[in-house]
Amino acid sequence: MIPAGIGEKTVDLRKQSLRQHALWRGKIEISPRVEVDGREMLSLAYTPGVAEPCLAIAQDAEKSFDLTRRWNTVPVITDGSAVLGLGDIGPEAGMPVMEGKCVLFKQFGGVDAFPLCIRSKDPEEIVRTIELLAGSFGGINLEDISAPRCFEIERRLKRDLDIPVFHDDQHGTAVVIAAALINARRLLSKRTCKVVINGAGAAGIAVAKFLLRLGMAEPILCDRGGILCEGDGALNEAQREMAGVTNRGRMRGDLADALRGADVLIGLSGPDCVTEEMVASMAKDPIVFACANPTPEISYERAKAAGAAVVGTGSSEKPNQINNVLVFPGIFRGALDVRAAEINFEMMRAAAEAIAACVPDGALSAEHILPMAWEKSAHEAVAAAVSKAARDSGVAKR
Amino acid sequence: MIPAGIGEKTVDLRKQSLRQHALWRGKIEISPRVEVDGREMLSLAYTPGVAEPCLAIAQDAEKSFDLTRRWNTVPVITDGSAVLGLGDIGPEAGMPVMEGKCVLFKQFGGVDAFPLCIRSKDPEEIVRTIELLAGSFGGINLEDISAPRCFEIERRLKRDLDIPVFHDDQHGTAVVIAAALINARRLLSKRTCKVVINGAGAAGIAVAKFLLRLGMAEPILCDRGGILCEGDGALNEAQREMAGVTNRGRMRGDLADALRGADVLIGLSGPDCVTEEMVASMAKDPIVFACANPTPEISYERAKAAGAAVVGTGSSEKPNQINNVLVFPGIFRGALDVRAAEINFEMMRAAAEAIAACVPDGALSAEHILPMAWEKSAHEAVAAAVSKAARDSGVAKR
Repeated sequence: MIPAGIGEKTVDLRKQSLRQHALWRGKIEISPRVEVDGREMLSLAYTPGVAEPCLAIAQDAEKSFDLTRRWNTVPVITDGSAVLGLGDIGPEAGMPVMEGKCVLFKQFGGVDAFPLCIRSKDPEEIVRTIELLAGSFGGINLEDISAPRCFEIERRLKRDLDIPVFHDDQHGTAVVIAAALINARRLLSKRTCKVVINGAGAAGIAVAKFLLRLGMAEPILCDRGGILCEGDGALNEAQREMAGVTNRGRMRGDLADALRGADVLIGLSGPDCVTEEMVASMAKDPIVFACANPTPEISYERAKAAGAAVVGTGSSEKPNQINNVLVFPGIFRGALDVRAAEINFEMMRAAAEAIAACVPDGALSAEHILPMAWEKSAHEAVAAAVSKAARDSGVAKR
Repeated sequence: MIPAGIGEKTVDLRKQSLRQHALWRGKIEISPRVEVDGREMLSLAYTPGVAEPCLAIAQDAEKSFDLTRRWNTVPVITDGSAVLGLGDIGPEAGMPVMEGKCVLFKQFGGVDAFPLCIRSKDPEEIVRTIELLAGSFGGINLEDISAPRCFEIERRLKRDLDIPVFHDDQHGTAVVIAAALINARRLLSKRTCKVVINGAGAAGIAVAKFLLRLGMAEPILCDRGGILCEGDGALNEAQREMAGVTNRGRMRGDLADALRGADVLIGLSGPDCVTEEMVASMAKDPIVFACANPTPEISYERAKAAGAAVVGTGSSEKPNQINNVLVFPGIFRGALDVRAAEINFEMMRAAAEAIAACVPDGALSAEHILPMAWEKSAHEAVAAAVSKAARDSGVAKR
């Protein structure tokens, strides 16, 4: 079941991870913040005292952000349909990833995140389930839900809820890719920015939209059927929309055609679909972000050997890990701190710029375009920038 | 908004509780059980290593009990329709109680409980929501859902899910009342056991059923309309069913009529509906359990003054707190430890007997018929008895 093309070290790592998970039996737990050690605490934290905060919230539901943990609590919700690069493995099987995200949420953002897997692939049911639960949470993190369903689910939740809704696979990825691209271009003093995105799923489309809106690039999107081009009948609705705003020169062909002369490859697809020849055909000093997990589109070493000036992957095993773990803890910390009603473009741009700014000129190199995921200061910088952008853009409620 | 009839001390306590809740801003939090402090741990707990436990669960969903926290995780789910004795205060307003329960679950049972409030009163939607989420949990604790909807919701979930489903207001209450009654009768050497239950909602009906099945009593149920009697047209379906198996002498009348000559009053209704005269009219050495929260049917002091031999209330402020906090942590601990498919009658009986046995003859007194809620040994005794009963009754999967 292990995808082909991953090295021996990675196989060992994955076996070790399985053993560790069996020992951990869960990577998170619930901890009381009060100790009920006798009559008095039982009366204060539970009945009869607890009736008073209940009644206060009944009179003003907004008080649930002051008198319960709601203000700091976010579910990491999946239907298990697009877990890592493993695809549709089902809700229960997605849980180890969701728990992992919850660990990172708390450790790097101080956010209390709780994993929920939903046994349905019906957007209607998923939306309704989340809306029914929204009163328990300060924000919603959608995770590993496949395209194009994820777009509809996110759109409706954003419309109906007054707490931030964030599909991390889309927007977390968009932010970290933008940050990586800012710094790779800074390093290489690259003026041109012909970007090819391979993978027109949730992440690929979100990255394309974000780069367009940032004015950083007019990307070309590729998928299994080749370059997305206006008028192509095989596209789904979301892809059709993208074909209308990307590839304005109406290029047709496959990934190899698209990459010829390109400055940047952003891989958000699957394992081993990019060859050394493709990288060699790119413009001078090509930038290759091969982000598929757990196995990249082309390995770090092969991309370097083919002449890439800067290479990033999704793995923590190689230099330049391009992973949204740099994004979601800080972006939710920043949003929750000011009770933001949403996570908007301005907050995402602020996050991307804050991440890029974490690597000063002196430290910037081909092996170091991004801060390490475990650098606390990076997450703090993201949170501060996001809170400020929320206030400046008028979505902060506090 | 404070119900009438509660003393000055309780008012102070409730004000203090409100202040404390504003300081706590949440009584529980999520804690990582692994520390991601660098590249290696990120690779093991998250990507790429995490792919391996995901694939293992995809092949065998039962492995989610070994490789994630599912085995120990239970949601405390409410729709906010019957919170304490406060009634239908809404989902968000129920959260302080749910969080409190989660504290007690962990502290006394080691169970990771997470509060979820559902914004719907429709049994169909509540059932569907919980079924869609069931893959995230090792058991389901329903909480403060009003009758008669709670019966239908519980019945369908028990039928459809292969993890334990427990409506604490029904069954936790039934178990602790039975334990209290066992010991009160032991103390008073009472042979007769004419029981009157006031309140034919979720708790009252569950207590009646449990006492019947235990063979401890043939209770008479009362509600606002008086004694439940076969043929009464004003009853809901659940009450009609109970009228067919209780009150076989077809007594009619109100609570005062029912109590005349009764041995035991079990109050599971609302504040201040029992008078001293009613207690004085009961048989010799009457037992009064006035369990309404936060304000009992008759205060501890007034019941004693009226001649009750043993008095219990739901409050931790008085002797003999009869509260299901003695039940739910241990009963779930016991069920989860053996991966029980359900929590059945045998497990509930074992829990009641284990709680009663925690008070040895030498310690048994009119002021001490139950262990204190914070006695760890009581919860351990419940868990052990419940695990054994699950095995003996064939519902343990491990």
